[in-house]
Amino acid sequence: MMRTRAAVAVAAGQPLEIMEVNLEGPKAGEVLVEIKATGLCHTDEFTRSGDDPEGIFPAILGHEGAGVVIEVGEGVTSLEVGDHVIPLYTPECRECEYCLNPKTNLCQSIRSTQGAGLLPDGSTRFSMLDGTPIHHYMGCSTFANHTVVPEIALAKVRKDAPFDKICYIGCGVTTGIGAVINTAKVEIGSTGIVFGLGGIGLNVIQGLRLAGADQIVGVDLNDDKAVMAKHFGMTDFVNPSKIDGDIVAHLVELTGGGADYTFDATGNVNVMRQALESAHKGWGESIIIGVAGAGQEISTRPFQLVTGRSWRGTAFGGASGRTDVPKIVDWYMDGKIEIDPMITHLLKLEDINHGFDLMHEGQSIRAVVEF
Amino acid sequence: MMRTRAAVAVAAGQPLEIMEVNLEGPKAGEVLVEIKATGLCHTDEFTRSGDDPEGIFPAILGHEGAGVVIEVGEGVTSLEVGDHVIPLYTPECRECEYCLNPKTNLCQSIRSTQGAGLLPDGSTRFSMLDGTPIHHYMGCSTFANHTVVPEIALAKVRKDAPFDKICYIGCGVTTGIGAVINTAKVEIGSTGIVFGLGGIGLNVIQGLRLAGADQIVGVDLNDDKAVMAKHFGMTDFVNPSKIDGDIVAHLVELTGGGADYTFDATGNVNVMRQALESAHKGWGESIIIGVAGAGQEISTRPFQLVTGRSWRGTAFGGASGRTDVPKIVDWYMDGKIEIDPMITHLLKLEDINHGFDLMHEGQSIRAVVEF
Ligand SMILES: [Zn+2]
Ligand SMILES: [Zn+2]
Ligand SMILES: [Zn+2]
Ligand SMILES: [Zn+2]
Repeated sequence: MMRTRAAVAVAAGQPLEIMEVNLEGPKAGEVLVEIKATGLCHTDEFTRSGDDPEGIFPAILGHEGAGVVIEVGEGVTSLEVGDHVIPLYTPECRECEYCLNPKTNLCQSIRSTQGAGLLPDGSTRFSMLDGTPIHHYMGCSTFANHTVVPEIALAKVRKDAPFDKICYIGCGVTTGIGAVINTAKVEIGSTGIVFGLGGIGLNVIQGLRLAGADQIVGVDLNDDKAVMAKHFGMTDFVNPSKIDGDIVAHLVELTGGGADYTFDATGNVNVMRQALESAHKGWGESIIIGVAGAGQEISTRPFQLVTGRSWRGTAFGGASGRTDVPKIVDWYMDGKIEIDPMITHLLKLEDINHGFDLMHEGQSIRAVVEF
Repeated sequence: MMRTRAAVAVAAGQPLEIMEVNLEGPKAGEVLVEIKATGLCHTDEFTRSGDDPEGIFPAILGHEGAGVVIEVGEGVTSLEVGDHVIPLYTPECRECEYCLNPKTNLCQSIRSTQGAGLLPDGSTRFSMLDGTPIHHYMGCSTFANHTVVPEIALAKVRKDAPFDKICYIGCGVTTGIGAVINTAKVEIGSTGIVFGLGGIGLNVIQGLRLAGADQIVGVDLNDDKAVMAKHFGMTDFVNPSKIDGDIVAHLVELTGGGADYTFDATGNVNVMRQALESAHKGWGESIIIGVAGAGQEISTRPFQLVTGRSWRGTAFGGASGRTDVPKIVDWYMDGKIEIDPMITHLLKLEDINHGFDLMHEGQSIRAVVEF
């Protein structure tokens, strides 16, 4: 049992509280990680705010971190003390029915306990100083200076990569780039449309550039987003509030009949429909990345599908984390992808609530807490 | 100019009228075909009844025929007099952007004139004896003893195949089997669920058997459909009106987590949703085959897609007709697929309206008119 410092979500809708907490050492198959940096993601805020119907409190949020292995539990063979790691909210056990099926990355081996805010043995490692258990979050809980994570939920990465940048590969970078290369499998010369030019959308754009797309259309209601998106490879910008008539017709015209691939990174179900319907007749695929509000539904006429469009979704960019995340770290270090311009704010843990303010104000692409 | 005998849809909602009509000879790129047999499809009835918002009258309906080439127009090189052919409502020009893209079969080369009930030069070959033009239908108009069809909309097939069976390959057989092998690309050992055990559903079932599926679940409200479906390869039958609780949960349980592939052959948008949601998490694909009523929409929670299900559609079973239809005729002749038990009624042209009655009464799988 050790003590560490964490930002604790004590109750839905409350600011996070910075406090000392107890942390038990790793049990069998678990690893103690010193978190060096963690990004603040909309998903954390979705839960903190109370909008997430499955939110559990108290909990230590955060799922986009990077750090160093401090101690390994019994039976851990793939990691050792000193290894650099990125926690994975989508683990990769390499043994379950899902891991053994190349069509999916949705490892189910620890899903039920992870969803309940617990480690695989059904308990928490975190507790308040008075002994009250504190739940884990997405199997990661990176808003703490130290955390315990199952071995199967840690990607081992190279040691020369900077924590304050590669932490973003734990969620947004992999989600956006992976949607392009793993889920859509975009071919060289394709056309793509990206709805929503926040952090995920920018990573979809650089994924499309990496995949060799010829035309990369970005769609956002905020003109200010265009500068950064162009930097990452956008070729055409469309602000739906500034075009005459129907946005779908406009995009179909702009892309010569619709895009080969379209991506929703907004979470808005109406935009998801526009994304589908601006995919090319005959072969266009539309990929849902954004998470919609509870109970919301997508709709379209079945004719859209019968005439050859496909409607799909992606989680963690279709990436098998232990296998794919180290490669994406390499791509970053080799300059094949960029992350630095997206890390707009570096904060101390004490200022983490300010990081959520920046998110709400649209000031940040990614705010990162450094320990 | 010749005369031939046809069943003419004179106005929406009226019975077809058997009459002599004028037929001009084939122009450049066109072929005169003597129709030997034609199936009666729900799509013909959809238009005859007036439900089809794009229906045009007067017209000669019918799109599921087989016959013999009588005369070829100028420049026709791929067919000659005496060839046996199946008209294709989805042509295959082998030159347009769609034909050159292996992801789609939706040849667009003559789409606009075909949709307007005209041949590619913008006129009709059929007329009433008083000179009133009669529209073509789906580019085929097989409810006539003779018809004129563009060369690119004719599949040349072997001469020993019986017309009264292979006419069904012009629509239902290819649609059902093709949905499995071209659109879904079902792998050996897969599980499949087929919603709706009419003519299309039966062909999906035999497509699944041909593709080597292990479990083939049929879903229909009518228990009587199970006998024929079992004959074609169904392994499990479910009547939704006879199970307790939710049909989706029942099917997910029955298939051990959901089916690898699900197919809607009902045209009912609520069933389309059930089909999607009974596909397996992570990799299940759901294919819409049925045509929904005008203005109807499909809906689901985006979570269904984000957790790995795909929603797709198919038209003419994803088949490139000139290439694929002759192969399916071979499969029939070789005994790899069956058609005979599905041709439940043979009629004379005079009795074609009775054929639609049989369809409404659920008496027929396929009624075929022989000339
Ligand atoms: Zn995230
Ligand atoms: Zn697994
Ligand atoms: Zn048909
Ligand atoms: Zn074509």
